[in-house]
Amino acid sequence: MNIEFVNPFLVSLINVLATMAKTEVIPDKPFLKSEKIAKGDVTGIIGLTGDKAKGSLAITFTEPAILHIVSKMLGENLQRIDESVADCVGEITNMVTGGAKKILSEKGYKFNMAIPSTIIGKNHSIVHATKGQVICIPFNSIAGSFFIEVCFEE
Amino acid sequence: MNIEFVNPFLVSLINVLATMAKTEVIPDKPFLKSEKIAKGDVTGIIGLTGDKAKGSLAITFTEPAILHIVSKMLGENLQRIDESVADCVGEITNMVTGGAKKILSEKGYKFNMAIPSTIIGKNHSIVHATKGQVICIPFNSIAGSFFIEVCFEE
Repeated sequence: MNIEFVNPFLVSLINVLATMAKTEVIPDKPFLKSEKIAKGDVTGIIGLTGDKAKGSLAITFTEPAILHIVSKMLGENLQRIDESVADCVGEITNMVTGGAKKILSEKGYKFNMAIPSTIIGKNHSIVHATKGQVICIPFNSIAGSFFIEVCFEE
Repeated sequence: MNIEFVNPFLVSLINVLATMAKTEVIPDKPFLKSEKIAKGDVTGIIGLTGDKAKGSLAITFTEPAILHIVSKMLGENLQRIDESVADCVGEITNMVTGGAKKILSEKGYKFNMAIPSTIIGKNHSIVHATKGQVICIPFNSIAGSFFIEVCFEE
């Protein structure tokens, strides 16, 4: 996979969480998905299609991490992952992808975004049906960890 | 949501399972997703984008249903949801969407398909971040039930 596709999502996620949730997050060392499995409690997922490439983005949060982020976003103290948390995860996924799409467009890659979906369920994992590689970037926040997974095929 | 977008996925799913898994499945009464939540153990999900509309498809299987289907597809007796089952769910999702895309194209709706992803995890549910309605169609097979969820925005 073209590594150029990864950083726009990383940069956009850092921006979105700083702006929307006043949460600073630190990216950890990226790894190829085949080495490990990222497990989480809620995942936002979105597809992208373009003339030159197609791909998908998943953001998988552990429960403490997303409750912290959404509590900051909404200004109320959330205790469990419910539909309003799922809606925020969909919105975060949309905003991160929108920001990355803009950066990619400046690099000459035009994409259209599908509708994001959010998966709720304790300790689930994601398998991307791509012939290419899946890059996973772990993030750490004050409240817990989460992961973004990016895969593209040209 | 335009109901024209739903039947191509229903017809395509029946075809794919009959052809690939020699499994006849019967669609039950469709319902709007807001009324109920479909829960399953493995889900294939894919985004579609087009000039006139964008959407996503999710196929959520209970464990007995998918183990039956994949065992028929691969000709071996599978006991649990592992990565080979996830790969088959991704492949089913791809084939169903490819078939639906062809039917939709004949109706004048051209779509591009993103990369399918598969979620593995006991009893998870999906929330689609769409302003439109989500149509869920339950299916029954000899081995158990599963659901397709279709949402599109024009």
